[in-house]
Amino acid sequence: MLNKKVSVFVAGSWGTALASVLADNGLEVMIWSRNQKQVEEINLKHTNSKYLPNISLSDRIKATTSIEEAMNGTAAVIIVAPSSGMREVASKIKPYVHEDHLIVHATKGFEPKSLKRMSQVIAEEFTTIEEENIAVLSGPSHAEEVINKSPTTVVISSVNLKAAEKVQDLFINSYFRVYTNPDIIGVEIGAALKNIIALGGGMSDGLSFGDNAKAALITRGLAEIARLGVAMGANPLTFIGLAGIGDLVVTCTSQHSRNWRAGYLLAQGNTLDETLKKMGMVVEGIKTTQAAYELSKIYDIKMPIASELYEVLFNKKEPKFAVEDLMGRVKTHEMEDIAKPSSKKWVE
Amino acid sequence: MLNKKVSVFVAGSWGTALASVLADNGLEVMIWSRNQKQVEEINLKHTNSKYLPNISLSDRIKATTSIEEAMNGTAAVIIVAPSSGMREVASKIKPYVHEDHLIVHATKGFEPKSLKRMSQVIAEEFTTIEEENIAVLSGPSHAEEVINKSPTTVVISSVNLKAAEKVQDLFINSYFRVYTNPDIIGVEIGAALKNIIALGGGMSDGLSFGDNAKAALITRGLAEIARLGVAMGANPLTFIGLAGIGDLVVTCTSQHSRNWRAGYLLAQGNTLDETLKKMGMVVEGIKTTQAAYELSKIYDIKMPIASELYEVLFNKKEPKFAVEDLMGRVKTHEMEDIAKPSSKKWVE
Repeated sequence: MLNKKVSVFVAGSWGTALASVLADNGLEVMIWSRNQKQVEEINLKHTNSKYLPNISLSDRIKATTSIEEAMNGTAAVIIVAPSSGMREVASKIKPYVHEDHLIVHATKGFEPKSLKRMSQVIAEEFTTIEEENIAVLSGPSHAEEVINKSPTTVVISSVNLKAAEKVQDLFINSYFRVYTNPDIIGVEIGAALKNIIALGGGMSDGLSFGDNAKAALITRGLAEIARLGVAMGANPLTFIGLAGIGDLVVTCTSQHSRNWRAGYLLAQGNTLDETLKKMGMVVEGIKTTQAAYELSKIYDIKMPIASELYEVLFNKKEPKFAVEDLMGRVKTHEMEDIAKPSSKKWVE
Repeated sequence: MLNKKVSVFVAGSWGTALASVLADNGLEVMIWSRNQKQVEEINLKHTNSKYLPNISLSDRIKATTSIEEAMNGTAAVIIVAPSSGMREVASKIKPYVHEDHLIVHATKGFEPKSLKRMSQVIAEEFTTIEEENIAVLSGPSHAEEVINKSPTTVVISSVNLKAAEKVQDLFINSYFRVYTNPDIIGVEIGAALKNIIALGGGMSDGLSFGDNAKAALITRGLAEIARLGVAMGANPLTFIGLAGIGDLVVTCTSQHSRNWRAGYLLAQGNTLDETLKKMGMVVEGIKTTQAAYELSKIYDIKMPIASELYEVLFNKKEPKFAVEDLMGRVKTHEMEDIAKPSSKKWVE
């Protein structure tokens, strides 16, 4: 059984929004941040204005710079660190975790260089925790809408159904619907790779290419995500679920998405450095494009969209030419590269 | 081999946009319309202002009220009639078709009452045409963007690969990319059913529910479309392609879509009659909701979104309560109702 306290690392927009759902469900939430000013703001003003402007937080949400205090008496640890900082955050928490803790992460990306999924990084760091007590939360969920209680659906995935159901019980309420899914590999890959397509979607919009082009990008993007995912051990059905197409659609079509915004800025002629400077927040899709490029070589999978974006981001290819090269690919049968040829026979 | 003339029935926005692609490819196009004024406008002013305001058409596009003239010397017949009028249009063309004609339709819906797919209606009417010379064109393609040469991708499906490739050759160019797909049942079902979800998407936006809710609707919508489609004989892979998720995304997220607009008007408190009056054009999604409701009973398939929309459209249920009932469904495992349970086992 879970008791009433959960801790959240760290105090970005998504971490704070998830804290808010948990507080709405009657739990005491302790957010950890290394930033003393942010901690004071959350405790005294009940706001986190850098990440969620004009939002009042529940007084059941408290903050601390002390990991020990955050972890004291907690039943579940929610980690929403940037993918490049996951191992560092996990290593700080490590001395305080014990085998009864439920660990949930909601980070969308791969660890740079090692190209590991986030649950793999967590499992490596938290050696006292069984793999089956580690879960991931993903799905189409802009923080700004969740905190305003707009209807939202997500998935929780773990190799252990009971653990997934415990996490489901923590989060589920009338505006936040939680489904379970046993395919943690697929959920984490879908979550990470959709940010690449969102960058592409922003780029397409920045070039004024219209909704037809963006729908094509989303569809072909889903196909290449699924190709890589299946090669890495995922269940293909996950990619037509909330953590696949659901998250892809919301990230590519909404201007809330920072990956979309980064793509838009690039299409308007900003360099990568200028874009990052203007964004001022982590843009996961950029590192993920590099990771996907490397993974596509390792697994020998064609990923034309990720490859063209890699050229734009790291080899100064003009976005316009990248999109033209994507459109100009030879005519082909649609299913050829989504999956093995259909069992249905053409009449010749 | 195809010669240089093709004919298009009828002169709505999509028929005219497809005529424009064909004219750009150097073909002579003859559009048929029963409206003498519209025919004169196309021939003399090179515009079709009711359906495509502020657009100039190629002078290779001509129009006529004579079916005989439209069909004289044509190699391919493109039919883009409303689904409820398909049989009537086909029966008019019937005396002029012969076995060498390639028949392509781009109509998205089922025949009312019979619930037949459009290619079935065409095959029944054109008894001299082999089924393998009938093709469907579908995919994420707003007419307004195609006519402005925005990058667009579509699929052509026929039971005959060679026929599909002939149609592909007619349409393909630098801004209009054409893929082939052998699953005509899936392509037609995807094309028809996406209009229901687009109605729901407009309704969700009309209720200010946000992007998270719409992404959930699209994802769960795809699942119920695929469920019915597979029961009717479709290949499930079609639904993750351009005629499935691609068309679904573009129709649900773009304000060009008349189904989206109809849903939006309904959510704002308009009755069905008021909505239809304000639209002034055919809204395929309304008839398709009724068809899907009936098909879901015949094939014993759960279609919660189509069912709730049916209640809104035909039984005066308030849109707000319909969406609340969709969100309030019991918590469940995500894949349970997308497909058969995964072969992966949960660790219990």
